[in-house]
Amino acid sequence: MELLHTDTLAEAREKLKTETENFMLRIHRIPCDEALGCVCAETVTARENVPSFRRSTVDGYAIIAKDSYGATDSNPAFYSVTGHVNIEERAAVSVMSGEAVQVQTGSMVPDEATAVLMVEYTETYSPNKIVGYKAVSEGENITQIGEDMKMGDCLIRSGRKINARDVAMMAAMGIGTVQVYEPLVLTVISTGDELVDMDEELSGAKVRDINSYGLAAQARSNGFIVRKQMRIKDQETAIRQAVEEALDESDVILLSGGSSKGNKDYTKKILEEITHNVFTHGISIKPGKPTILSYDRQHKTIIAGLPGHPMAAMLMFRLVILDWYETIAKIPKGYPYFAVMQENVSSNQGREMCLLVRLVCGEEDYTAVPVYAKSGSISALERADGYVMIPRNKEGLKKGERVRVEVFE
Amino acid sequence: MELLHTDTLAEAREKLKTETENFMLRIHRIPCDEALGCVCAETVTARENVPSFRRSTVDGYAIIAKDSYGATDSNPAFYSVTGHVNIEERAAVSVMSGEAVQVQTGSMVPDEATAVLMVEYTETYSPNKIVGYKAVSEGENITQIGEDMKMGDCLIRSGRKINARDVAMMAAMGIGTVQVYEPLVLTVISTGDELVDMDEELSGAKVRDINSYGLAAQARSNGFIVRKQMRIKDQETAIRQAVEEALDESDVILLSGGSSKGNKDYTKKILEEITHNVFTHGISIKPGKPTILSYDRQHKTIIAGLPGHPMAAMLMFRLVILDWYETIAKIPKGYPYFAVMQENVSSNQGREMCLLVRLVCGEEDYTAVPVYAKSGSISALERADGYVMIPRNKEGLKKGERVRVEVFE
Repeated sequence: MELLHTDTLAEAREKLKTETENFMLRIHRIPCDEALGCVCAETVTARENVPSFRRSTVDGYAIIAKDSYGATDSNPAFYSVTGHVNIEERAAVSVMSGEAVQVQTGSMVPDEATAVLMVEYTETYSPNKIVGYKAVSEGENITQIGEDMKMGDCLIRSGRKINARDVAMMAAMGIGTVQVYEPLVLTVISTGDELVDMDEELSGAKVRDINSYGLAAQARSNGFIVRKQMRIKDQETAIRQAVEEALDESDVILLSGGSSKGNKDYTKKILEEITHNVFTHGISIKPGKPTILSYDRQHKTIIAGLPGHPMAAMLMFRLVILDWYETIAKIPKGYPYFAVMQENVSSNQGREMCLLVRLVCGEEDYTAVPVYAKSGSISALERADGYVMIPRNKEGLKKGERVRVEVFE
Repeated sequence: MELLHTDTLAEAREKLKTETENFMLRIHRIPCDEALGCVCAETVTARENVPSFRRSTVDGYAIIAKDSYGATDSNPAFYSVTGHVNIEERAAVSVMSGEAVQVQTGSMVPDEATAVLMVEYTETYSPNKIVGYKAVSEGENITQIGEDMKMGDCLIRSGRKINARDVAMMAAMGIGTVQVYEPLVLTVISTGDELVDMDEELSGAKVRDINSYGLAAQARSNGFIVRKQMRIKDQETAIRQAVEEALDESDVILLSGGSSKGNKDYTKKILEEITHNVFTHGISIKPGKPTILSYDRQHKTIIAGLPGHPMAAMLMFRLVILDWYETIAKIPKGYPYFAVMQENVSSNQGREMCLLVRLVCGEEDYTAVPVYAKSGSISALERADGYVMIPRNKEGLKKGERVRVEVFE
């Protein structure tokens, strides 16, 4: 009675990447303010210098810096105000020694001026005559052309999930459209004779269909389009038909429920018949072993059999399918949290372990508290904030050990 | 030449909360699988016990535990298989001493059975006769009724942003609909004679309108609906008209650009005339001082004048308006990151400081690297991952000091 040959997580990921070589992410160009949350599919660079002109960073007077040298409260410098520059205007006036041109925050500074004296350090003593109580150095309160950003500087790397600040950057640069990846299309099929839908009464030993809802929501929150979310009986023909119907329109098909070693597990057989390319027959990770991976080269569709247990199914979707997507789209990994283990945890050697944990925020650090859950626990979905990966060659985790916690989205 | 009286950030937040007492978040009930990303507006509790029946956690045989005591590889126990329970079925068969009923992972366990013996530890030696090579204790491999969750247990607290696991939990519980807050409606008005739109040529001292794009995107990524995003000249009548038009349909109006001390700053005057209720005339925080807060009690609309600098505007939107929303909707704060300061940073005493930082992920910890940016820097939007708040009574931060970094969404 032994398990089939299983892959390590790393092996399964590598196989999936290799097998899907002919898979192409689709790219489209969209307005930058509709790109929020999309994955950038090009490297966006600055098209202009910022600022594009010498800009005052304060309200005050553009002067020749030298004129102010030595000025103090008791020994002010004197200036004639020869003009002013409004913030939208080109600075047409010139500045000569002893002169000052009034500017606002954001105004263009006249070419000859070499500093801006803040209005707070000046006083008007007669029309167009001011005194300045402070010395300013060359360049003070002026942002030089291209000082903030130079033409050609990288703004957004390919693979970045575009956030609000990225949208602001593109607006700043006059970049009206951006290439992003089209969302992947996913079909979720929950299989199991015991499953009833949300609004049905539970009777006998029926349980509710959780996975089609959970996986669809997880896919959506990662930017996928869910084409269809369905629940079918654990019958060979029904499953085969559902998969075949989904092939044409799906980049990813998730089958959940039929990959453990029960009586009626047709998943592997069906995937083999449809794709002739089932390359992972189990992953040696706890939880999540009964994970099957196949790829239909003709339709360019990944078909994955995920565990029936909701937490395991959602974890394997993250660790395998989302990881694959992040790899091919070059999406940087999210920042993990570092935490201190609250207690010793043992793990199976020879099998990687995905330890569910709750994060407790302290004054200066986090504590990771293991979330224990029997196989199939549903409450674990709510009790855990994330997980710690324990490598297979490691005996476990020690109380006080520092760990990386990957937090669920 | 002194600044107007300014509030501390804490004072401004408190005033905003008090002044908006008559503001009511709108609640609606939606299907649970459409609630992803919405803010839960009720406390969702378990309506059923999970599991609702005694459930086997393995494939194997339901037995009387006592029958297995002492069984080993060399001294197996003998059982007659009297039936089997499919996973969707009510367990109709009973189990007596010496008997075994075949069950699958997820099957209902017959009432009399007190443990399940894993199939891996059994062997069939003639039809309906098995031997078991292992002893199992009372309750082993059985999840008891309500063991995972009990009726009445809290599943989702009011204020939680509903994630994929929450959707899975609701599906598990047969909770088809959930009360969530309707998104707030927001209008963004960028003011400034110097502003041109994204697709226009820059000429003279014009700069692009960044804030209407950045703030709108920030609002959207926090679940707001952006009713309108507009850019208008810094003219009193134009601004007044835009605000008045937005009042009826907006919960929040953001004005950006006209709150510093330039020539043409009508914001304060207009807000006073429209709302008769401008309560914050500046916040003593760097950056973000020129922030004006008012509330129109009649229309139940917050009108905020935000700084013109993009980074400052987005920070103040987060620190004041989003903070307000999170407070009234009781949304828990996101987890901060802890990091070690890379260098000394001085701060103005008497004024809170929002220090932009980049996070560098090390083996066991993060380093926070200050992002220096002149006032109005646009590149800071891209260079910073988040910020550290330095309280006003603190001199600065020391190299090696542990800090909390709030990461931008």
